[in-house]
Amino acid sequence: MSRGKARVEAKPEVFYGVVDGLKKLYKSKIMPVEQTYLFHEFHSPLLGDSDFDAKPTVLLLGQYSVGKTTFIQYMLGRDFPGQHIGPEPTTDRFIAVMHGPEDRLIPGNALAVQADKPFRGLQRFGTGFLNKFCGSQLASPLLENITFIDTPGVLSGEKQRIGRTYDFAQITEWFAERADMILLLFDAHKLDISDEFRRAIEALNGHDDKVRVVLNKADMVSSQQLMRVYGALMWALGKVIKTPEVMRVYIGSFWDQPLHSTENQKLFEDEMTDLLTDLHGLPRNNAMRKVNELVKRARLAKVHAFILGHLRAQMPAVFGKEKKQKQLIKHLPDEFNKVRLQYQVPASDFPNIQRFTQQLEVQDFTRFQKLNQKMIDDMDHVLSVDIPNLLKRFPLEPEQVAVAAASAA
Amino acid sequence: MSRGKARVEAKPEVFYGVVDGLKKLYKSKIMPVEQTYLFHEFHSPLLGDSDFDAKPTVLLLGQYSVGKTTFIQYMLGRDFPGQHIGPEPTTDRFIAVMHGPEDRLIPGNALAVQADKPFRGLQRFGTGFLNKFCGSQLASPLLENITFIDTPGVLSGEKQRIGRTYDFAQITEWFAERADMILLLFDAHKLDISDEFRRAIEALNGHDDKVRVVLNKADMVSSQQLMRVYGALMWALGKVIKTPEVMRVYIGSFWDQPLHSTENQKLFEDEMTDLLTDLHGLPRNNAMRKVNELVKRARLAKVHAFILGHLRAQMPAVFGKEKKQKQLIKHLPDEFNKVRLQYQVPASDFPNIQRFTQQLEVQDFTRFQKLNQKMIDDMDHVLSVDIPNLLKRFPLEPEQVAVAAASAA
Ligand SMILES: Nc1ncnc2c1ncn2[C@@H]1O[C@H](COP(=O)(O)OP(=O)(O)OP(=O)(O)O)[C@@H](O)[C@H]1O
Ligand SMILES: Nc1ncnc2c1ncn2[C@@H]1O[C@H](COP(=O)(O)OP(=O)(O)OP(=O)(O)O)[C@@H](O)[C@H]1O
Ligand SMILES: [Mg+2]
Ligand SMILES: [Mg+2]
Repeated sequence: MSRGKARVEAKPEVFYGVVDGLKKLYKSKIMPVEQTYLFHEFHSPLLGDSDFDAKPTVLLLGQYSVGKTTFIQYMLGRDFPGQHIGPEPTTDRFIAVMHGPEDRLIPGNALAVQADKPFRGLQRFGTGFLNKFCGSQLASPLLENITFIDTPGVLSGEKQRIGRTYDFAQITEWFAERADMILLLFDAHKLDISDEFRRAIEALNGHDDKVRVVLNKADMVSSQQLMRVYGALMWALGKVIKTPEVMRVYIGSFWDQPLHSTENQKLFEDEMTDLLTDLHGLPRNNAMRKVNELVKRARLAKVHAFILGHLRAQMPAVFGKEKKQKQLIKHLPDEFNKVRLQYQVPASDFPNIQRFTQQLEVQDFTRFQKLNQKMIDDMDHVLSVDIPNLLKRFPLEPEQVAVAAASAA
Repeated sequence: MSRGKARVEAKPEVFYGVVDGLKKLYKSKIMPVEQTYLFHEFHSPLLGDSDFDAKPTVLLLGQYSVGKTTFIQYMLGRDFPGQHIGPEPTTDRFIAVMHGPEDRLIPGNALAVQADKPFRGLQRFGTGFLNKFCGSQLASPLLENITFIDTPGVLSGEKQRIGRTYDFAQITEWFAERADMILLLFDAHKLDISDEFRRAIEALNGHDDKVRVVLNKADMVSSQQLMRVYGALMWALGKVIKTPEVMRVYIGSFWDQPLHSTENQKLFEDEMTDLLTDLHGLPRNNAMRKVNELVKRARLAKVHAFILGHLRAQMPAVFGKEKKQKQLIKHLPDEFNKVRLQYQVPASDFPNIQRFTQQLEVQDFTRFQKLNQKMIDDMDHVLSVDIPNLLKRFPLEPEQVAVAAASAA
């Protein structure tokens, strides 16, 4: 028996349209405010194209030999450059499997400096890690919508620490934060929840909503054994993960070989369908998340402009600048209060005051720009008109369609 | 499609032979020591026939309508007196379903005073409970080896407290302590782990080794739904039960109706077989437990005799009895030490010294008997010769047979 290749039937162009719209709004209306008021010196760097264009990312984690690399190969329906599959620990590096016009393997050091790729943040982990990182490019329809991150298997104890030139947990955390979905793979045939893996899972607390579990190789055991293994997995996960919401587990055999036992064929097929639907939803969720983050960022840029404009306005024209600046810093809570009342900004939109105080201490307030109300109004227009308009282009979820149809009738 | 009736193919006579042997040893060699040295005034009442003869007991617990009563009916292959089955809360009392020559319903107040039944301890819960307790007797082969305790479903919050004339948790705890197996039933069709039920499960901590879970009505849902329900159950149980050992769950549909969905027929059949094997093992485990407890009891009776004999020997013949008694109590640790050295008793065999001190305070030491070495020697013979001989009559477990065969070859 041979099984069909997996394919994600997404129509995600519309979401990329939304993201493109966001990018234009940012560059024309938000970035000018950030630049004028030195946003990057206080908060975070200006956004580049890669921050918008980055594909939804799926991070694969699991003990060695659970089938992470095979899973990606199966989803792509073909081999990818740099792929190593085998019964021993094989994948020895983090591989970003992503779209490109032709097959190409890009070394980590090179990949981490490319401005159009979302991996520049990895430079701070140094060559110790970058030597163990690479990009695998290939032309695959699925990769037009999703980037996969293949990872080395979690090893036990000593091996883990001694063999590696970087901090596995830190790197995992970096990718987890940026991922749209985290797939935890387990082998039904050889379930092993070691202390190391438990710690890795615990480190994912806070990203619970992104985590999905794959119970792989489920056709290698009898139905009864599968129940025992699956039960043991849920039992252990329930102890480790603090939320009451049960984590979604996809049960099946994610490779292109015939099923070893066909007892649960129907179940595996249904699970595969659900997993594809889940992947299919990533571009939508990813676009939603980007909208959300940009709105948050614009609100912060606004209050930031108010604060710096206000501080600038307090500065004397000629004498006593230094003294005045010291005073302003000392009474920063009062100044924040004035800004809050003058511009009707919610208190929760203000930055952390301790941190802001420290940041102000190295600044020369005369560099600050006066408030440019036109610029702020333009950015406000983004929040109140442009982004809501953009959101209208989001296709409704099936249940929203049903509700809309019902209320129209 | 109709399914065969369940039957436990145990040959448990041999275990009852062991228990009968135990009873004789107790009466002839251990009870005399207990009687002579007032064991019951310090430790626990003399054992009666019912303490030996009580059948292995299976306690059924679960929310209402999960199918507890139906489960028992299915196992028996017939209705039992006092059985009520229905979609609403139906069973409103605890029912001990046990063997008897003919069908008969015995009211709780009457059942709790019968010397040959193991329910006398329930008298302390008063008529508030005994009115809600009864015995259901019938002639069924399975009941020759096992007694089932059917229970009212666990209700939620208010209903639970208001409707009941007794403390449900206390009663459950009483039966759980004495049970050989505790079956927690869940309905796959309507999984509900309420706070009340969670507390009931938590109260079973300490009896973890006896608990088995039954996921009932598993044919009423699709394979995928079953996986979700089962996963959610294990997730929740893993959080409630502190042990890392995964609790055994039997998945199936435990009644005599055709399966609603036959997708998992093979699994359900395998699970049924395993459950029967598990029940089948009860007479053996029950006999083992009784041996174990009697050995512990005899060791305690022995050290108890040494202590009382020793204290008696310290008492003056004529004058100053009261003063001497007070002194002995005051220096009890020294006296324990003397006994330990003289008779070579392990320190861990001694009773709790605070409690023993309190108990001695209401005694008159002149009532104590001097040590009767012959009596002790007879009891020692039970521990060193008679019980090991009895144990030889235990049939070996399959794996033990394999080992024995291998080492004989
Ligand atoms: N669904 C499956 N059923 C049975 N065997 C599988 C399945 N998927 C992969 N395998 C086999 O398991 C072994 C490990 O696979 P793979 O190399 O993909 O695992 P991995 O998780 O990437 O391991 P590593 O952590 O070492 O990179 C290989 O021999 C592969 O053929
Ligand atoms: N295996 C099964 N599959 C489907 N339905 C079942 C099954 N077992 C029992 N039922 C139905 O479920 C309902 C409740 O059964 P039953 O009275 O045995 O439950 P119970 O746990 O004893 O409830 P209570 O706590 O009220 O005594 C009944 O309608 C019964 O026919
Ligand atoms: Mg790999
Ligand atoms: Mg009932």
